Amino acid sequence: MAMNEQILVATGGAAPAENFGTRIIELAHHLAQWSEMPEGLMCTYFSPVHKAVAIQLREWMLSAGLEAKIDPVGNVIGRYPSAEPGAKTLILGSHYDTVANAGHFDGRLGILTALVVAEHLQRTGQRLPFHLEVIGFSEEEGVRFSAPYLGSGAIAGHFDEDALARRDASDVSLATVLRKEGVELPAIQALARRPETLRGYLEVHIEQGPVLLSRGLPVGVVSSITGSARYRIAIQGVAGHSGTVPMPLRRDAATAAAEIVLAVERRCRAGTNLVGTVGQLNVPHGLINVIPGSCEMSLDVRSVDDATRSAAIHDIFAAIEEITGRRRVTASIKEIARHRASPCAPAMQAALGQAVARAGVEPFYLPSGAGHDAEMFAGVTDIGMLFVRCGNGGISHSPLETVTAEDADVGARVLLDTLVHLN
Amino acid sequence: MAMNEQILVATGGAAPAENFGTRIIELAHHLAQWSEMPEGLMCTYFSPVHKAVAIQLREWMLSAGLEAKIDPVGNVIGRYPSAEPGAKTLILGSHYDTVANAGHFDGRLGILTALVVAEHLQRTGQRLPFHLEVIGFSEEEGVRFSAPYLGSGAIAGHFDEDALARRDASDVSLATVLRKEGVELPAIQALARRPETLRGYLEVHIEQGPVLLSRGLPVGVVSSITGSARYRIAIQGVAGHSGTVPMPLRRDAATAAAEIVLAVERRCRAGTNLVGTVGQLNVPHGLINVIPGSCEMSLDVRSVDDATRSAAIHDIFAAIEEITGRRRVTASIKEIARHRASPCAPAMQAALGQAVARAGVEPFYLPSGAGHDAEMFAGVTDIGMLFVRCGNGGISHSPLETVTAEDADVGARVLLDTLVHLN
Repeated sequence: MAMNEQILVATGGAAPAENFGTRIIELAHHLAQWSEMPEGLMCTYFSPVHKAVAIQLREWMLSAGLEAKIDPVGNVIGRYPSAEPGAKTLILGSHYDTVANAGHFDGRLGILTALVVAEHLQRTGQRLPFHLEVIGFSEEEGVRFSAPYLGSGAIAGHFDEDALARRDASDVSLATVLRKEGVELPAIQALARRPETLRGYLEVHIEQGPVLLSRGLPVGVVSSITGSARYRIAIQGVAGHSGTVPMPLRRDAATAAAEIVLAVERRCRAGTNLVGTVGQLNVPHGLINVIPGSCEMSLDVRSVDDATRSAAIHDIFAAIEEITGRRRVTASIKEIARHRASPCAPAMQAALGQAVARAGVEPFYLPSGAGHDAEMFAGVTDIGMLFVRCGNGGISHSPLETVTAEDADVGARVLLDTLVHLN
Repeated sequence: MAMNEQILVATGGAAPAENFGTRIIELAHHLAQWSEMPEGLMCTYFSPVHKAVAIQLREWMLSAGLEAKIDPVGNVIGRYPSAEPGAKTLILGSHYDTVANAGHFDGRLGILTALVVAEHLQRTGQRLPFHLEVIGFSEEEGVRFSAPYLGSGAIAGHFDEDALARRDASDVSLATVLRKEGVELPAIQALARRPETLRGYLEVHIEQGPVLLSRGLPVGVVSSITGSARYRIAIQGVAGHSGTVPMPLRRDAATAAAEIVLAVERRCRAGTNLVGTVGQLNVPHGLINVIPGSCEMSLDVRSVDDATRSAAIHDIFAAIEEITGRRRVTASIKEIARHRASPCAPAMQAALGQAVARAGVEPFYLPSGAGHDAEMFAGVTDIGMLFVRCGNGGISHSPLETVTAEDADVGARVLLDTLVHLN
């Protein structure tokens, strides 16, 4: 892997303020060469591409002077030990799997930022009062098995055993895939860290939204990771001929759904730190000349405040009842997921915020609307997250996702400064 | 075909007021035995099932004492000649093809009503001042080739030559199917009747809507066949993460589509003799956690008054422009069909209305929101239509479609009475 080492060697020795960012961007583009798609980036759990990326990450960790290994579920772990053997461990993590047609930075920015910072500490001989682990989690997006957080869940002790039965698009179960790798459930359970051995968990991640961009800030401190509730809603009306049923006699499932879509939008616009989305909307077997007899939709409501989210859902359900009653249609609502919000530890927020200020940037605290690996460690240890500004209007999960080298550099310097000030 | 003849013989000799309806219902159920679906009725153009139905109709016409034949495009034509050889021809028509999972009466009620009436005239020796033709049109629904009115279009001189290139679900073109039957375009063109040979066109059809049901009337006289305009609309917004993009910054294609759906409904509710339907509504590749970047929808607007329809479409397009502009999304609109309204001839409406009154029923005039074979003859000869009440809330194109024997009987008696009073 001469070329990769060359990347590290070529820039690793220069002053960090000049070079962290450029190198992070270079490494991210380099990792994107392995993809399951001919055009665009895709890297899903335990594909050949995924394994190649893991091997590359381990090589870079070794080159950076870390102890490095790939664990049974595919997490790549680089360790920079403390001078005190009995010290606790601080984890710097994020994920290296991607969605389909992904950007180069979602997940990977956090691993690479941690990598260059750990390498800097090792090269400059700065020892910390805790062991530092850089972890590239193998799975966060849930693309292949519709089971997210497989990597971070295992380390945090939250591995979802129900996920073993889930099947990929080729009808192969996760259990089968793991068995082929020689991995059984007890080995996964053994990956879980004991909370008393952990000093904390920090994650750098692109914002995946436009807030920092609109405020002109390179980084921001995450206050809380949003809680979410997801539903599938099926509206049942009465089909009819589009030409023969007068408007007042109709029981149109799609017009009812349209009112619900707008009710969701109106209610969530009225709230603070609240978003609601109907991402799926479909009249099954719809015909141009048939009044829709049924309509299916999804609902995703998120807030960093659980009470805010619950109140919004209560109001949305009341609106659905009013709309369907008035329109003489019915709605069946099925909850498919609910996650409480995960607040970041005040001490970690303060530590990150002070480092941001020392970097000459106004400390700004914002909630995370997306879920992140950090969630898995909430309740296990103190968690903290630093967002780096996303270009291009905040687009993510897209080839249009961008981060500038300057912003990536600020992120790395803030992370380094946070670590050297943390007890 | 002993059994079929038995049906005719068993009931054909009794008093018409008692038996037309029962017999029509029996014959309709009998025809439904031939189907392309194991459960439910389906009979599409030139399938083996379709040919079996044509042969049965011809047999029944022969048994009824009519001259009968099947023409090159599959129309089944039964002729009861006038005493005057040089007389004009009055056509009684409707179609015998069906949609998928159809009811037993859409189209066929009109053929069978005409059949029993013509048989009655023949048996009782009543000659008319015009030749009477009972025609079972082979194709009206457009199911197999997305090309409706193939049968009636040929007779009316409106055969759509572009339809020859259309292909069915097995990728076989209509031209290929006709060639296998030994039918070439000149033979189809030769089926067109010269307008000066026609006395008029009358069609009995189920209403396919709830208006007669809600008014408690067994039959109604059609005033006009609706005109329609159909569009495909594609909304383009910007996709985004459902958790990270604040509500005010979104450019959600589905919420824009929802507003358009409700604008169509609101505008068409406000009109008279106006209906508007969004029958297809879909977020392509929608995901529960992605803000819809695009949304596709159909639009079908109908009115018996062309100016009413045009004004509504104008207002709907203005609403689309306002909605998409305000929401910073775009809409592309493609017209896929436009038909002018076809008014029924005042003389035919009057003739039918007077017969309705003589049957002891309040004459009621209503527009047809659905298209019918009669449309093909508008502008060629005087057209008239009689609707028979549809049960079950007016449902059609469904196994739930019903007509009572009593109502079918009123329909047949009114048709017979209209014919004997027509010069």
